[in-house]
Amino acid sequence: MLNVLKTKGRARCGQLHLAHGIVETPCFMPIATKGAVKTLSPNDVASLGADILLSNTYHLLLRPGLEEMKKLGGLHNLMGWDKPILTDSGGYQVFSLSKINKTTEEGVTFQSHIDGSKINLTPELSMEMQAAIGSDVVMQFDDVAAGDSLRERYKEAMERSLRWAERCKKALPLMESLTKQKLFGIVQGGTHEDLRAISAEGLVEIGFDGYAIGGLSVGEKREDAYRIVSTLTEKLPANKPRYFMGGGMPEEVVYYVQQGVDMFDCVLPTRNARHGTLFVWTQDPSTIDWESCPTDFYKGLRITGEVNKFDQTTLDPFCDCEACKTTTKAYLRHLFSVNEILGMRFATIHNLRFYQRLMQAQRDTIMVQ
Amino acid sequence: MLNVLKTKGRARCGQLHLAHGIVETPCFMPIATKGAVKTLSPNDVASLGADILLSNTYHLLLRPGLEEMKKLGGLHNLMGWDKPILTDSGGYQVFSLSKINKTTEEGVTFQSHIDGSKINLTPELSMEMQAAIGSDVVMQFDDVAAGDSLRERYKEAMERSLRWAERCKKALPLMESLTKQKLFGIVQGGTHEDLRAISAEGLVEIGFDGYAIGGLSVGEKREDAYRIVSTLTEKLPANKPRYFMGGGMPEEVVYYVQQGVDMFDCVLPTRNARHGTLFVWTQDPSTIDWESCPTDFYKGLRITGEVNKFDQTTLDPFCDCEACKTTTKAYLRHLFSVNEILGMRFATIHNLRFYQRLMQAQRDTIMVQ
Repeated sequence: MLNVLKTKGRARCGQLHLAHGIVETPCFMPIATKGAVKTLSPNDVASLGADILLSNTYHLLLRPGLEEMKKLGGLHNLMGWDKPILTDSGGYQVFSLSKINKTTEEGVTFQSHIDGSKINLTPELSMEMQAAIGSDVVMQFDDVAAGDSLRERYKEAMERSLRWAERCKKALPLMESLTKQKLFGIVQGGTHEDLRAISAEGLVEIGFDGYAIGGLSVGEKREDAYRIVSTLTEKLPANKPRYFMGGGMPEEVVYYVQQGVDMFDCVLPTRNARHGTLFVWTQDPSTIDWESCPTDFYKGLRITGEVNKFDQTTLDPFCDCEACKTTTKAYLRHLFSVNEILGMRFATIHNLRFYQRLMQAQRDTIMVQ
Repeated sequence: MLNVLKTKGRARCGQLHLAHGIVETPCFMPIATKGAVKTLSPNDVASLGADILLSNTYHLLLRPGLEEMKKLGGLHNLMGWDKPILTDSGGYQVFSLSKINKTTEEGVTFQSHIDGSKINLTPELSMEMQAAIGSDVVMQFDDVAAGDSLRERYKEAMERSLRWAERCKKALPLMESLTKQKLFGIVQGGTHEDLRAISAEGLVEIGFDGYAIGGLSVGEKREDAYRIVSTLTEKLPANKPRYFMGGGMPEEVVYYVQQGVDMFDCVLPTRNARHGTLFVWTQDPSTIDWESCPTDFYKGLRITGEVNKFDQTTLDPFCDCEACKTTTKAYLRHLFSVNEILGMRFATIHNLRFYQRLMQAQRDTIMVQ
């Protein structure tokens, strides 16, 4: 499914062939948690350059629900989005969002954060829900250890995730799916290299369409995450896509691309946008030496700052998004100061365009002779 | 400034020549209370067919403020909107939004609903603020009586509004304005025909560029509002624009157009949209006999209703807006049920397009042989 077009060091440029189209990698997936990228229409997201978006099994299981999603004919049909979709399995959201959750070998019992109802999410139910969603890429259901866990807990979660990976691989083909789905395993093990190695080997032995690195970007030191990823990518099959889950800052994405990661998702561009922080280029992205893993190619612009009050210049002179073409720092600051939704929309458009161009620049760097 | 192209009965079709362009009348002005139509960019608003938008002196006086607006070079410059703008004078908002307000002959002292600071809004300050905004059409500052007032209070407010109208007419030319501004007087007097007549005569004697009918759509019976408007329009100069403030439902707009009203603004399309109620055509607007003042040409669609849960048809088969072209009732209902901002945006786009096409249909009806 991954057609590697070119490699340069460990970095690679490729095409991911999925049921709803081809995704150019390395890629960044905007997050449509509940079936919409906040403030944007599906057409808006496509026009920013995204080939694929990510949605969440946990949220869609709560609303609209499993039977409802089946009746709706899947998420592509509901949203009117005809490009690929990847769905998270729900493991992380159960862990992070629901107040009461209890993990057993069978699965996780949790209380809905919406209405308090009790739900038992198992690997099989996650597969059934993702089949109903009809996502192009299905993530295995995993046991997620908290970021500050003891080694024993990481080991337990990693081993259970392996067993659940097998159950997912068995269950998915039995589901009546709306689309030809690919299944990814998730490497766990915290910042322990030996646990990560066991996890990777176990998953490869089971055999998946792609491999994700989970359980990072959860508060660990950046050097630990860098160490884990740089020792891990070589253990994952070269002909399968590698997906770093839930990260990260632009310079982290650049580093991970250099380590051979193909896919990314992160709440940062959209969440920061809604809080008034923009990623702004400090120079034209086509002029940057990406292989040196620079960290100074952007800065954070706090649009609510007093300094922007009368600044009638564009948000980012190196950006080509609708917000940068049509508005000013002064207007965007005004919109945030009076709580106008348009402010969040402009900032979201800008930040997602920033990440899409970041990925385009990585692909260009790898493809160039 | 109003070039009447054609009349049919009392209804008329014309062109309003303003500093930032020509407005086709009868027209509907979307409301950009704080300098943005909620969820929409200035380009979005223009693409829906609006020639002119309305903003509020009261809100802009609080944020960004008078001196700030001067420094920003006016609202056109701040927003990046190059078509006409009309600004409300602040009288109505002081009355409806601020908890503590005290009216004297000098003006209204009120507490900001943002930070509680005390502001003394006078006819002169309203003119200064509107000059700073640089709106194409400036509304006089008026004294607004509550909808359930006694006749004596309506009389007092109407007479004071006349005196304030004179002060506005004197003050505006003394202000350093950013644009060549037109000043409109506002007819007051509640549902009392004799008070309305005195108000209209008084304003015409002072002489304004246009005349607004204020103090209706505030809870009075519809038949009372219809009676007042139908007896009032003939008392207003035929060569000057007539503006019905703050109304109304689509069938009311149709009726008032037949009575010779040229301009409208209303929160209904945008506010209802944000609460999930859409105006939906029951037939193609070009096939409707508008001169008969029909009331059954649209219906309200409560998108959050259970009945829409699996309805994958378009919102309104007679509409050409982005929402109707790209989404379904089921998706819009889902967006509202999970509180996604995109739902409010789609609904706002639809409702504003409905009102713009309503006005287009009125103009077409008047212009046709």
